[in-house]
Amino acid sequence: MEFQLGEAIDILKRTPATLNSLLRDAPVEWVMGNEGPDTWSPYDILGHLIHGEDTDWIPRARIILEHGEAKAFEPFDRFAQFEKSKGKSTAELLDEFELLRRKNLASLEQMKIDSGKLALRGTHPQLGGVTLSELLSTWVAHDLSHIAQTVRVMCRQYSEAVGPWKAYLPILSA
Amino acid sequence: MEFQLGEAIDILKRTPATLNSLLRDAPVEWVMGNEGPDTWSPYDILGHLIHGEDTDWIPRARIILEHGEAKAFEPFDRFAQFEKSKGKSTAELLDEFELLRRKNLASLEQMKIDSGKLALRGTHPQLGGVTLSELLSTWVAHDLSHIAQTVRVMCRQYSEAVGPWKAYLPILSA
Repeated sequence: MEFQLGEAIDILKRTPATLNSLLRDAPVEWVMGNEGPDTWSPYDILGHLIHGEDTDWIPRARIILEHGEAKAFEPFDRFAQFEKSKGKSTAELLDEFELLRRKNLASLEQMKIDSGKLALRGTHPQLGGVTLSELLSTWVAHDLSHIAQTVRVMCRQYSEAVGPWKAYLPILSA
Repeated sequence: MEFQLGEAIDILKRTPATLNSLLRDAPVEWVMGNEGPDTWSPYDILGHLIHGEDTDWIPRARIILEHGEAKAFEPFDRFAQFEKSKGKSTAELLDEFELLRRKNLASLEQMKIDSGKLALRGTHPQLGGVTLSELLSTWVAHDLSHIAQTVRVMCRQYSEAVGPWKAYLPILSA
């Protein structure tokens, strides 16, 4: 499927409600459980998504629009949430994400992105040349990837509880 | 994590809202797109979840409570949705799932399941001996597994659109 701005915005708008329905007021072990050492819980993933709203998608789009390829993006800190989320409840993180997403989609609107702008190029510190269209596509895919991860982590809490049905649930063994 | 009925019900209650926030009024290609030949779209998955509400979880729990191991479960048709969903809109399927889930959770409540009942055994036509606790755990894990699948299928619609970022999104290559 090719990137379409309207459709991308439609999907991006859905993520706060999806995370709310999965996690708000959910039993604590379902929110804090992970997949073992050095893996993330739904709570950790939520903090990671917030850090992306703060420092990744819209700030990088601005760099492309203002500087093109001349200025590389700031590297993204994939572990910032372990400090940043400290002391915050899941409900606070969900509220924060919802607010930031709304603010960022408003900023996106103000950029008045057309097909000419979508083709503009920027510089990723590791990947090299990328387009604005690829950045915005990645925003969408990154959301969906981490929703899928959140749900997988929750699912695996019942890896043993399902007994012999484990054989029919490849998500529990992959 | 061990099975706990109250927590399982909490998770099962969330699924209709999660599917709504992902799929209701979403762009049609995001709902109907699949991962290639003989794979399922979010629309197909929704039909499969509905068929589970109709024929799997509560009917099998009843067989365990009424017949124990003496009567094997009916085999579950994993492809029933391809006929059953015909002519129905995504919104109709979402409504149908929500209604059936509410009805089935009410039936579950009426079963007054305690720890003694959770240990009761039934007979799966392929897997052999299973417990009511394992059946109910599988209901939860099956929901989460298919939500994760739904989101993965959506994510993969942008496998190419993300350009070089594909290297950072293992969900697109797995």
